[in-house]
Amino acid sequence: MLEIGLYGLGRMGANMARRLSRGGVRVRALNRSFEVTGKLAAEEANVVACASLDELVATLPAPRIVWLMLPAGEATDNALDALAARLSPGDLIVDGANGYYKEAQRRSATLADKGIAFSDVGVSGGIWGLANGYCLMAGADAAAAARIEPFLKVLAPTPDQGWLHAGPVGSGHFTKMVHNGIEYGMMQAMAEGFALMEAKEEFDLDLAAVAELWRHSSVVRSWLLDLTTDFLREDQKLEAIEPFVADSGEGRWTAAESIERGVPTPVMSLALMMRFASQGKADYTSKLLAMMRKGFGGHAVKEG
Amino acid sequence: MLEIGLYGLGRMGANMARRLSRGGVRVRALNRSFEVTGKLAAEEANVVACASLDELVATLPAPRIVWLMLPAGEATDNALDALAARLSPGDLIVDGANGYYKEAQRRSATLADKGIAFSDVGVSGGIWGLANGYCLMAGADAAAAARIEPFLKVLAPTPDQGWLHAGPVGSGHFTKMVHNGIEYGMMQAMAEGFALMEAKEEFDLDLAAVAELWRHSSVVRSWLLDLTTDFLREDQKLEAIEPFVADSGEGRWTAAESIERGVPTPVMSLALMMRFASQGKADYTSKLLAMMRKGFGGHAVKEG
Repeated sequence: MLEIGLYGLGRMGANMARRLSRGGVRVRALNRSFEVTGKLAAEEANVVACASLDELVATLPAPRIVWLMLPAGEATDNALDALAARLSPGDLIVDGANGYYKEAQRRSATLADKGIAFSDVGVSGGIWGLANGYCLMAGADAAAAARIEPFLKVLAPTPDQGWLHAGPVGSGHFTKMVHNGIEYGMMQAMAEGFALMEAKEEFDLDLAAVAELWRHSSVVRSWLLDLTTDFLREDQKLEAIEPFVADSGEGRWTAAESIERGVPTPVMSLALMMRFASQGKADYTSKLLAMMRKGFGGHAVKEG
Repeated sequence: MLEIGLYGLGRMGANMARRLSRGGVRVRALNRSFEVTGKLAAEEANVVACASLDELVATLPAPRIVWLMLPAGEATDNALDALAARLSPGDLIVDGANGYYKEAQRRSATLADKGIAFSDVGVSGGIWGLANGYCLMAGADAAAAARIEPFLKVLAPTPDQGWLHAGPVGSGHFTKMVHNGIEYGMMQAMAEGFALMEAKEEFDLDLAAVAELWRHSSVVRSWLLDLTTDFLREDQKLEAIEPFVADSGEGRWTAAESIERGVPTPVMSLALMMRFASQGKADYTSKLLAMMRKGFGGHAVKEG
């Protein structure tokens, strides 16, 4: 029986454990809170709960494969340090977080000194992955890629589709980064279009009906449109929603990469900037502009 | 038997005539070049070739429905004038071109004075519409909408999906305009992302494989990605393609509408601007910038 360690049972990790378990993989699972681990192990036939990293490493048959599904940054960094101290030469760590590809390259080099292999795997599919399968892009050398392939085939929608050994270490997180950059741009374009229709009061458009319409044979049909249709059907006024859009690292790294390579990505970068603006981070600019207008034209300033 | 006049057998019109004919509608077809009309009539059981607008109007049973699939602008304007002079009260003109919605509103008012009804129908689906059906958004009053509904049901992918009476006259072309604005933004975001991956030489990515991968369970899966996958599979260097992107009216009208309504559509508008730049229309700006750099910093100018 295929066996893997999975560390991190958040929204993504827990569902991946379920999909692996149902696909016939024994998953030795670990999570910050053991309550979650115990519950998952009770529900899923092939999930075995581990209470600690030591237990995970001790019970996994060598050579081990440990897959991390922790938030990128500190949580992943700490787990990688702790794992590196416990694993043996020949073991393999997979980082499935939305991590920065340069960090993956750096980590891989450090782990290689200890004889530990590393693979960065970008994972898309969100909360729908359990049912539909995940879209997986792996960065790894040939040997590591061959070792994780059986697991990718279970996680993907089908054994033949939805997973790719993209290239060397780093290329998994790199392609996932670009994927998310594209996602930012596509989302922004779609949201702007619906906002323009919402503002066109004279036509009194049913935006949910327009979205549903476009799902059929239009050029903009897409999974993002499918999702948009679903929530517009529930509520197209969106009055209860704050106009605040969070951003994670991926959009920023994409913009930074385009600057580093001198490749223009104006729409992806602007979509990121619009998220910053939604977070109130354009407010100081707007205040300054209002003051400038007052300064040269005597225009009234709206006081807060 | 349902019967309609169809004027304009270009790429879109000819396939729509085929789909209508195969769906059991008698199509009295007219085209600038009769050769095309004759050929289509020979191929399709329910297409009847007309040699002139007079013949089209004379042979269509009243009250007539004449659907125009001509290029927006002069060709459509001329056809509308010629039709208005020949049709009778109770007849109905459908404009299926990518026309400006304000023009549809103006036309509708003029035709209403003569008792002729009007509907603007946005049609998406491109050259794939014949096989898959079209996505149709109609602007019309209730009476006109009821009259065209049977034809929309044949042209759409299924009788229940892919067509919508969006609202009053103008709303069909308006929603199609916004659809195309969104399309510009989505296309630009996707193209930028692939360009960034293409530039990342150290990973030597197979862009067709990445595109194919993303078609399965990723967030960016979409029809545009499906198309992109197809042509990247043929050739991902694109060396034979000129980096020139044409634009039609829709993107410009979308940007103008956002300015008129004061609704920000930065990504859709920037995608349009990037098309202008691809057409060489940013060249004068770039020349001026090069001269400014020379002026204040003595930087060399690249001479043409």
